[in-house]
Amino acid sequence: MESRISELQKRVEAALAGWLPESNILPGRLHEAMRYSALDGGKRIRPVLTYATGTALGVPLDQLDGPACAVELIHVYSLVHDDLPAMDDDDLRRGKPTCHKAYDDATAILVGDALQALAFQILATDPHMVDDPSARLRMVEQLARASGSRGMVGGQAIDLGSAGKQLDIAELEGMHVHKTGALIRAAVLMGANSRPDVDPHTLDGLDRFAKCIGLAFQIRDDILDVEGDTQTLGKTQGADQALGKATYPAIIGLESSKQQARELVDRALEGIAGLDERADLLRWIARFIVERIN
Amino acid sequence: MESRISELQKRVEAALAGWLPESNILPGRLHEAMRYSALDGGKRIRPVLTYATGTALGVPLDQLDGPACAVELIHVYSLVHDDLPAMDDDDLRRGKPTCHKAYDDATAILVGDALQALAFQILATDPHMVDDPSARLRMVEQLARASGSRGMVGGQAIDLGSAGKQLDIAELEGMHVHKTGALIRAAVLMGANSRPDVDPHTLDGLDRFAKCIGLAFQIRDDILDVEGDTQTLGKTQGADQALGKATYPAIIGLESSKQQARELVDRALEGIAGLDERADLLRWIARFIVERIN
Repeated sequence: MESRISELQKRVEAALAGWLPESNILPGRLHEAMRYSALDGGKRIRPVLTYATGTALGVPLDQLDGPACAVELIHVYSLVHDDLPAMDDDDLRRGKPTCHKAYDDATAILVGDALQALAFQILATDPHMVDDPSARLRMVEQLARASGSRGMVGGQAIDLGSAGKQLDIAELEGMHVHKTGALIRAAVLMGANSRPDVDPHTLDGLDRFAKCIGLAFQIRDDILDVEGDTQTLGKTQGADQALGKATYPAIIGLESSKQQARELVDRALEGIAGLDERADLLRWIARFIVERIN
Repeated sequence: MESRISELQKRVEAALAGWLPESNILPGRLHEAMRYSALDGGKRIRPVLTYATGTALGVPLDQLDGPACAVELIHVYSLVHDDLPAMDDDDLRRGKPTCHKAYDDATAILVGDALQALAFQILATDPHMVDDPSARLRMVEQLARASGSRGMVGGQAIDLGSAGKQLDIAELEGMHVHKTGALIRAAVLMGANSRPDVDPHTLDGLDRFAKCIGLAFQIRDDILDVEGDTQTLGKTQGADQALGKATYPAIIGLESSKQQARELVDRALEGIAGLDERADLLRWIARFIVERIN
């Protein structure tokens, strides 16, 4: 399975490289900074989920490149903005200087803004995607809702507002459902919508799968902030603790956090139990999420 | 005509108020800041252009609320980000403190991000818009291209990179075509696409109209930065000069700038000469753009 994941990571890398304007196109510095931020890095969890979901439903990979790129661009833009001095003020991302350190704050703001626009441009224009404008509009809707004020951006606002505050576990879960869960859900739903005739029962199961692994992913992130090391993570270990942020280990302890992540993965797998062996990649990813070390 | 413009301004205000989540919806502070930034202010030139274009082609107003809101939200988000300390560092906008002054830098970054997502969400979901998913996808494309790195955001990058530099008139025009022209063009094209059966000749003429008034609008902006006063403008008079930014008056002089703006309006009007009296509002707006005092 690792080799299939690796192939899909390379695939989305190539697709992103094709969509991102080259630095010889004006404004060159902006385009260079967009490529710097979006290419050559990251686990590409979200696009891999889009590919894996589509594959589980028999969708050819070239129909999935568009939504895979779109969801990854939203994720990358959120990292670029999140790292800004006015927000988390982080210098290191994916093992290299953050966009505003390599360029400047203004460029990083514009990079994020342009990456978001490109995500929607791809959903509207990619010629290889599913030839069903209604299905594509649904993807625009799913991505926009997932990334907006009641999705990812809302989660970041809750996160910022919670620094130094004592959150209970329900509030923390609410934050994560917004901050990372919504976009992971969109990654899966856009893959599923590439097969517009998917039956509602399967779609429901995939949605449950996505919700559970989204939360498990974030719990694992919190665990890694405690247990990981900066070099393996490619970002600063202990950064959440240093900022006084609420995390699962801080509220329910390290062992309970691990237990909860495992239970969520079990529930995720139940959601896709009815799918055939083409869904094995999805199953593997679910387990990988709670076992990963970066 | 002033009363029709005023009605349309009220109309888009009400439509925006309906789309923007209330501040009692979590995260409340983010939603409050989004409403603070997007409501109760501005000339609403872009949405008025969307309404006026649709009206010229016989499209009912309720089908135009969606694209009108979407284009205005992109414009508003760009102002919120543009005003940030890392960019133009402006304290005053539409006669009140800018978003980051009224809230904080992090909130202003997230407000802009969420407003952009909401713009695309509206195009994908508004139940009153044209019932043609292909036409709606074209609007997503037009808005995304117009706001991305080869549109508005690209223009802002060029603008930032040009501070203190000597631009020639072609470079300055290139910047404006991106920075303000692209979004004004999208405002007109989305109005036109609300009538999916519009003939290509009419569409071409509307596109020419949009390009010409977009540039005229920016030249007028440059003129007002020299001739206007802070109170009438609702933003700091002379701010461009103070930042050493290239402007039309600085390069070709005040009188030549005014002359060029008038010529552009004449060319704009030629583009829509074939339309009947339902296009009179569009014609009035074109003239207003070069005569406005704020």
